[in-house]
Amino acid sequence: MRGAVMFRPGDVRVVERDEPRLIRPTDAIIRLSASCICGSDLWPYRGAETLDWPAPMGHEYVGIVEEVGEEVAAIQPGQFVVGSFFASDNTCEICRAGYQSSCIQRAPVGAEGAQADVLRVPLADGTLVATPDRPPDDLIPSLLAASDVLGTAWFGAVAAEVGAGKTVVIVGDGAVGLLAVLAARHFAAERIIVMSRHETRQRLAAEYGATDIVEERGDDGVRRIKELTDGLGAHSVIEAVGTQESMMQAIRSTRPGGHVGYVGVAHDVELAGDELFFSHVHLHGGPAPVRRFLPELVDLIWNRLIDPGKVFDLELPLDEAPAGYDAMDRRRAIKVLLHP
Amino acid sequence: MRGAVMFRPGDVRVVERDEPRLIRPTDAIIRLSASCICGSDLWPYRGAETLDWPAPMGHEYVGIVEEVGEEVAAIQPGQFVVGSFFASDNTCEICRAGYQSSCIQRAPVGAEGAQADVLRVPLADGTLVATPDRPPDDLIPSLLAASDVLGTAWFGAVAAEVGAGKTVVIVGDGAVGLLAVLAARHFAAERIIVMSRHETRQRLAAEYGATDIVEERGDDGVRRIKELTDGLGAHSVIEAVGTQESMMQAIRSTRPGGHVGYVGVAHDVELAGDELFFSHVHLHGGPAPVRRFLPELVDLIWNRLIDPGKVFDLELPLDEAPAGYDAMDRRRAIKVLLHP
Repeated sequence: MRGAVMFRPGDVRVVERDEPRLIRPTDAIIRLSASCICGSDLWPYRGAETLDWPAPMGHEYVGIVEEVGEEVAAIQPGQFVVGSFFASDNTCEICRAGYQSSCIQRAPVGAEGAQADVLRVPLADGTLVATPDRPPDDLIPSLLAASDVLGTAWFGAVAAEVGAGKTVVIVGDGAVGLLAVLAARHFAAERIIVMSRHETRQRLAAEYGATDIVEERGDDGVRRIKELTDGLGAHSVIEAVGTQESMMQAIRSTRPGGHVGYVGVAHDVELAGDELFFSHVHLHGGPAPVRRFLPELVDLIWNRLIDPGKVFDLELPLDEAPAGYDAMDRRRAIKVLLHP
Repeated sequence: MRGAVMFRPGDVRVVERDEPRLIRPTDAIIRLSASCICGSDLWPYRGAETLDWPAPMGHEYVGIVEEVGEEVAAIQPGQFVVGSFFASDNTCEICRAGYQSSCIQRAPVGAEGAQADVLRVPLADGTLVATPDRPPDDLIPSLLAASDVLGTAWFGAVAAEVGAGKTVVIVGDGAVGLLAVLAARHFAAERIIVMSRHETRQRLAAEYGATDIVEERGDDGVRRIKELTDGLGAHSVIEAVGTQESMMQAIRSTRPGGHVGYVGVAHDVELAGDELFFSHVHLHGGPAPVRRFLPELVDLIWNRLIDPGKVFDLELPLDEAPAGYDAMDRRRAIKVLLHP
């Protein structure tokens, strides 16, 4: 089968790989209907993170189950499924508390490489969620978004305790930031302020329900947020970048007693304890426990109540994955969907 | 009047100071019934923090109102009152959300120096809470504890979301740590583990409801907590020290999805973003909004349902404040009460 492999920063190729097979009795094998490129794939692509080269790429996926191990009970061959980037048993104490991405048995599905024709998913019963039926083609991008970016945005909104009557700030206008707008709208936020300086992203943010756009960054951005919130800061801030600047921008834009939900994978971030102490913010985040939200997200998408698939503004055949990385790296595309 | 003044690290003297008078129409003047020395007073005493020398000391107080400004309505002369270390209006949006220690008008009462005969308290209506009547002498230590250490411990427990059926770890065995045991017991925690290696403190912890004592620190301490919690870590951890080691001990002792409530004033603490991200903990804390809890705490003490005053294991006349600092510095006393 074909699969995208990163050989070193900037060098992604679609090559012939061994087709995955069942290894453990809890595995499932899935023929992929769609996969995509993640903002987090750009860290190693840009040399800001090292992988075990050559590295199979991709951790977002939807597809049709081909085969399941003998201990798999809830998932059956023929079903259309969505899964999360961390496999989880969904039964341990940590999973039951809603933190499936810290499951005591967790396994990174990305290690298998989902930018491919076929994928092995460990712990199938605890990881995959089946749709009620085979979806129509136009729902596939939205279901694929649920696999990571939508679930991550949802977690950001939940971690930031977004709710009715609140003012929400979103730091980051990538796919996760944009879907955080959708999530904030869903959770009935009164005001949704997106920090963005890219016109196409601002447009999609507005479509998803953003009420204000702030183009300033850093201290200027914080000052602007304070101006918009009677000098107090926002109730809820969703951080969807992962840099020192974006984290401090998020913390400083939050009012005392407010909540920061941070879902951008932290890179070289150091938080000064005294500033955090006197900020009085709540801080919560990490790798999103997408599995917690998947049943609800699949349901919302299936009933066409949300349309997260709009973040895919470029669709390419799997063979053209390298062009997809290039487009995302140059910010010519928000998010690239790959058709096997 | 007399007041304790720190002239430089290690040098506290009780000197004659000008008696405070009403400055603003929202002020109250209080004749102090008792005051005390705080663990945080030891930072400048040990030279780990600089003050604007010479600095009047003390920010914990109970006493009888002598005089109020013309805009004070809720507090009257003759009342016995307890106040918090930050004056607050208790009406702004931040106060109404429960964060009085970040009130938009907040003022540090400590700047006036509460280790004295008389104290001016700004924003009296929003800061002070009167007891139902003049208290009997034996309740004064407990009411004084409510002014800071009990309120701080309470906030730590609330921030750590201590609750029924949960396992709670407390890092720090000073007055705040010990009263965090009392708070955790009040909030019906199932298991209360205190990290302490001092016998007298362990004894009081046990009296307040600790179920386990862990003497190990740092990585060994974390390992021991994991052993006691099926390898998962505690649901709630209250950090009551404020050093790099204690913060990391707290974060690493918490299970994914669990809560760290940190109330030790942070000194030279730097949190690595990536470790925090993957820890999946909730982090909340800061200067305790004691005023939020004061009415409830006064009520619990008045009805003798809790006895936080036991943390005062040394009582001295105000004139002997220097000996009190010395005793706390050498850890010969947990907390020193001063009688004016």
